Amino acid sequence: MHDIAIIGAGRIGRIHSVNAISEPRLAVKYIVDPVAKAANELAAATGASVASLDEILADPAVAGVVVASSTDTHLQFSAAAIEAGKAVFCEKPIDLDLKTAKSAASTLDSGGARLFLGFNRRFDHNFLQLRERIQSGEMGALETLHIISHDPSPPPIDYVRLSGGMFKDMTIHDFDMARFLLGEEPVSVTAMASVLVDPKIGELGDYDSVSVILKTASGRQCSISNSRRATYGYDQPIEVHGSKGAVAAENQRPVSIEIANASGYTRPPLHDFFMNRYTEAYAFEISSFIDFVESKSPASPSGTDGLIALALAEAALKSVKEGRAVKVSEITGPLADKSVFQGR
Amino acid sequence: MHDIAIIGAGRIGRIHSVNAISEPRLAVKYIVDPVAKAANELAAATGASVASLDEILADPAVAGVVVASSTDTHLQFSAAAIEAGKAVFCEKPIDLDLKTAKSAASTLDSGGARLFLGFNRRFDHNFLQLRERIQSGEMGALETLHIISHDPSPPPIDYVRLSGGMFKDMTIHDFDMARFLLGEEPVSVTAMASVLVDPKIGELGDYDSVSVILKTASGRQCSISNSRRATYGYDQPIEVHGSKGAVAAENQRPVSIEIANASGYTRPPLHDFFMNRYTEAYAFEISSFIDFVESKSPASPSGTDGLIALALAEAALKSVKEGRAVKVSEITGPLADKSVFQGR
Amino acid sequence: MHDIAIIGAGRIGRIHSVNAISEPRLAVKYIVDPVAKAANELAAATGASVASLDEILADPAVAGVVVASSTDTHLQFSAAAIEAGKAVFCEKPIDLDLKTAKSAASTLDSGGARLFLGFNRRFDHNFLQLRERIQSGEMGALETLHIISHDPSPPPIDYVRLSGGMFKDMTIHDFDMARFLLGEEPVSVTAMASVLVDPKIGELGDYDSVSVILKTASGRQCSISNSRRATYGYDQPIEVHGSKGAVAAENQRPVSIEIANASGYTRPPLHDFFMNRYTEAYAFEISSFIDFVESKSPASPSGTDGLIALALAEAALKSVKEGRAVKVSEITGPLADKSVFQGR
Amino acid sequence: MHDIAIIGAGRIGRIHSVNAISEPRLAVKYIVDPVAKAANELAAATGASVASLDEILADPAVAGVVVASSTDTHLQFSAAAIEAGKAVFCEKPIDLDLKTAKSAASTLDSGGARLFLGFNRRFDHNFLQLRERIQSGEMGALETLHIISHDPSPPPIDYVRLSGGMFKDMTIHDFDMARFLLGEEPVSVTAMASVLVDPKIGELGDYDSVSVILKTASGRQCSISNSRRATYGYDQPIEVHGSKGAVAAENQRPVSIEIANASGYTRPPLHDFFMNRYTEAYAFEISSFIDFVESKSPASPSGTDGLIALALAEAALKSVKEGRAVKVSEITGPLADKSVFQGR
Repeated sequence: MHDIAIIGAGRIGRIHSVNAISEPRLAVKYIVDPVAKAANELAAATGASVASLDEILADPAVAGVVVASSTDTHLQFSAAAIEAGKAVFCEKPIDLDLKTAKSAASTLDSGGARLFLGFNRRFDHNFLQLRERIQSGEMGALETLHIISHDPSPPPIDYVRLSGGMFKDMTIHDFDMARFLLGEEPVSVTAMASVLVDPKIGELGDYDSVSVILKTASGRQCSISNSRRATYGYDQPIEVHGSKGAVAAENQRPVSIEIANASGYTRPPLHDFFMNRYTEAYAFEISSFIDFVESKSPASPSGTDGLIALALAEAALKSVKEGRAVKVSEITGPLADKSVFQGR
Repeated sequence: MHDIAIIGAGRIGRIHSVNAISEPRLAVKYIVDPVAKAANELAAATGASVASLDEILADPAVAGVVVASSTDTHLQFSAAAIEAGKAVFCEKPIDLDLKTAKSAASTLDSGGARLFLGFNRRFDHNFLQLRERIQSGEMGALETLHIISHDPSPPPIDYVRLSGGMFKDMTIHDFDMARFLLGEEPVSVTAMASVLVDPKIGELGDYDSVSVILKTASGRQCSISNSRRATYGYDQPIEVHGSKGAVAAENQRPVSIEIANASGYTRPPLHDFFMNRYTEAYAFEISSFIDFVESKSPASPSGTDGLIALALAEAALKSVKEGRAVKVSEITGPLADKSVFQGR
Repeated sequence: MHDIAIIGAGRIGRIHSVNAISEPRLAVKYIVDPVAKAANELAAATGASVASLDEILADPAVAGVVVASSTDTHLQFSAAAIEAGKAVFCEKPIDLDLKTAKSAASTLDSGGARLFLGFNRRFDHNFLQLRERIQSGEMGALETLHIISHDPSPPPIDYVRLSGGMFKDMTIHDFDMARFLLGEEPVSVTAMASVLVDPKIGELGDYDSVSVILKTASGRQCSISNSRRATYGYDQPIEVHGSKGAVAAENQRPVSIEIANASGYTRPPLHDFFMNRYTEAYAFEISSFIDFVESKSPASPSGTDGLIALALAEAALKSVKEGRAVKVSEITGPLADKSVFQGR
Repeated sequence: MHDIAIIGAGRIGRIHSVNAISEPRLAVKYIVDPVAKAANELAAATGASVASLDEILADPAVAGVVVASSTDTHLQFSAAAIEAGKAVFCEKPIDLDLKTAKSAASTLDSGGARLFLGFNRRFDHNFLQLRERIQSGEMGALETLHIISHDPSPPPIDYVRLSGGMFKDMTIHDFDMARFLLGEEPVSVTAMASVLVDPKIGELGDYDSVSVILKTASGRQCSISNSRRATYGYDQPIEVHGSKGAVAAENQRPVSIEIANASGYTRPPLHDFFMNRYTEAYAFEISSFIDFVESKSPASPSGTDGLIALALAEAALKSVKEGRAVKVSEITGPLADKSVFQGR
């Protein structure tokens, strides 16, 4: 049984708390949040105490810290917890700025540092199956990968303003998924971007509809399509084609019925929210974090995974701005050393 | 928060215990099982105490009792708990013998008696959707209902020996589902039965492959196909046809991927066990029992539901033996009074 | 190249004519129809001549005769053509009355008689695949077979009046399909029937919604559901379950698109008419008849196939009327000799 | 009834001949092919005469000419037939070289010139449905379009050598389909390309795996994935996403069965050859050509359609070579005038 502390009593902090309660190896000891009301409510619901950052870091019983606060505090809180010797589960993204994130590497990547990054999709059992089927060799050599990821509707414009932009906010998940499945690092990125959904997003200099092609050193190709709009729900299928075969993960549906009438055969829409889509994945993510706390498994995703995804997002934006294919090395520079952030 | 006691620390008792723990309104206070080892283990896992039947019935804090013991004790334990003023969740079947079950009605159906019967499939969110779509009128007047229910493989022959026979052990679920969806009581049953899977089942005088047609007073028809064998997993689709349209609940799949290669397009097999198939339904069943304990919802399924399903099973067997359509009233006789067992 | 004559310039006669024209081995030489206008039009469209029955039977160039006239003339025209030494393609049913049909056997089943019966579904490439997969042993021993066959809407009441009743008009196709797939003759039939679609059908003493169970000597079971109404189109899936696996033929769709929007994911309705559903099957049926004319393949379906399907229809009706399972031998009596009608 | 002549007795010439025979408004009068054996065989099979180019052009009865000869002769034969006043069905591509094709425009686009280009996919009833659903407004404003088009296996290397390269041989179909559906002209193209299937293709300087993004003036995006390998058959789904909904055309399957066993649920592979996949489309294409001959419908696809698809192929190749997004206007230059080649 491990005690953990959760920093951030917002939406995602609550999800992790609830899942932590159902995980027998875990006890939520503390909730940290500057908003007292939120902290108190979540503490009450989970049987935890409200505490300050200093208190949780000082408590030797706390084995792990979940950083689920606002994005601009991710690096700072993660670094503090790592310095205090805790294993850290940091929500993605590690930061919105690649340079800042890289400069923190010296702290986050020191001797015993242990950072586990919250790319929830890696814990979906269907996508895990894709990876297993690829790694088993069943598909032969991977050739092309196709990711569609369309959100039901755009977030509030205030969210968009602070989001870091489409590529860092939304495509970043797909960049990580692409790396998770491709079996090779992308070396080149080309992208196109438009404003088709909400002109206000365009006024912020951002996009709401983007298409990306990634290419690896051996020539594997990955297409990504992102949109802030899909009237039929949270649309996120993945298709992998290899020399021996293909494997696809279908969209998840909240209910498996089909209605037939004079209009045809209709299945209900997809999930309308990513948190419903990934209910099981979030639970498995916390379990995996505990495996990591117990040193049973590596940090996957690691801080470096977060850094590379961020670099791909910057490369994609550069590609759009400059109308050309961008080499990933143009962005990452001396990132070659994969140990950065990787922990343990 | 309600304290409950669980009688029976076997497979199904464990499932209800685990689900009860995750239900915030519920605390598992006691585990009752003559096998001390089983009782102790489940008590340890759930934070409950081991107790005797008498102790749990005497504890006024116990609001509900889950009877998950062997079938031959269902009636006896349920009756005792009801006499002690507890709300009772009794696993199906209420008994293997209709006459015995009916004779217990006077006890189980007295003034404040409250019996909730464990037909787990009623709590599957897909089948619930079928019912909602039927009741909404979207399908028009229901005309035909098609239930296929094929198990992955036959149970051990010792289980079959005590099972009450194919119709009472397996089809009984489908009889209840048929009633749940048909919107009218079946009045006539015809059935055919064979031994196609395991000759040992035939040596016991039982069947492993049966087909049934039910007909209601207005002429609605329901076909049921049961088999003890399905190499592709737990096969249980339902299809409802009405005057305005049809609605079908597809099989549930443990994973939603599809592999394509020179052999074609392949999705993995279905669940291999009903408990995996009905994971979510079991959780929802316990929540629904608590609604019942809190008098927020009626007993559904009720004892009478159990009795009628049992009667349909006897009618089906009689139809096979006598080679004719059997009227349900031939079996139920004076069951007309639906209040029997229904509680409250 | 073979010359054939087509008797009957109605709907089904036209289909066979059009398909015959596209079959390079075939020339349509004559059209026979008492309605001069229909005969002339079809002759013009096919480049054939209008002729009388006597003329076509007297022309030694005519190798085959397609009997696509009204049901009550099937036996008479088929017998005449067979006596004239022609190979005969007779539309189903051979007759509406089993006794009449059987009494014609002596003529139709004489020495060189060659009768090919028009059960079009046997020529659907999907159903043929079912049969091949069963016969290959891939499915192991067949255990249960499930046929749903729901028509888009009831035929005109005048058609119903002359149809011979639901079992002989509609289920007869499913009886033949069941025999085509079961690999054993049904020995027992039980059925239930209702009037749910159109009370006028009930006033004629007929039914519009029926359910049937067939059982073979070894215990294989087949369920058939027939309805005169399906708002979503021509609904006709078949599912076969065996000891090693199952195989299903899905409904055929006129178009393979799916539309997604806030209402969900919708595929267009099925075909709205059996002739569109079976376009390819009708073409393959004529080709198969030519194989038969050329003595390359046996009569399949044969006259005996028609006779047995008719017997199953009578057995089903008897089962409904008498509320009991009916043995097929009660109906067929001395039909044991399968050579009846089978030709060569 | 119109007489036509078919130039080219190869694979595609035979397909058009067979379909022409089944089209009642058409008679195949002549076959032209320098290979006497091929010409004679096809003439015999179709009831046509063998003739020279001069003879068919001189025969005033010939209303239409199908140019199904080798690619390098398409322009020359089409020009000759147009000068002779014939309506021309020219197989795609109009030529492998955009400059050559454009220079022919003055001839092909003169007064009464009538050129109909053979992009067969436009005649698939499923893709036509996509277009209709888009044009009906059901999907709202189109946002993204996704085309996967993977061939079962690479063509012989000698074919590849003369093919004009991946973009002109294979992607050209997808470029045309994109234009057919997008509702706006693509203005920008970016592409990545690899050799993953057959190193010999790489030795020729060609690719076997390409990814393309097209963007229109308003920001609509289209992704195309092409591969010369797909073990599961001819893989060609299309997905269209708009502001109000999405519509997808699924892969076509030669048979609609599904087999279930311990390995899961398997549907047979897709068609193994584009000619089987597009059987119905080819038939409809010839009918549409006759509508065009009869001046009932415009040239669709037109020569200009062929020219623009060719330009997109050149832009994609340039994008790969130069590692940048290429404006379509860089390639087409003064093509703005859409009347080029469009006929009438």
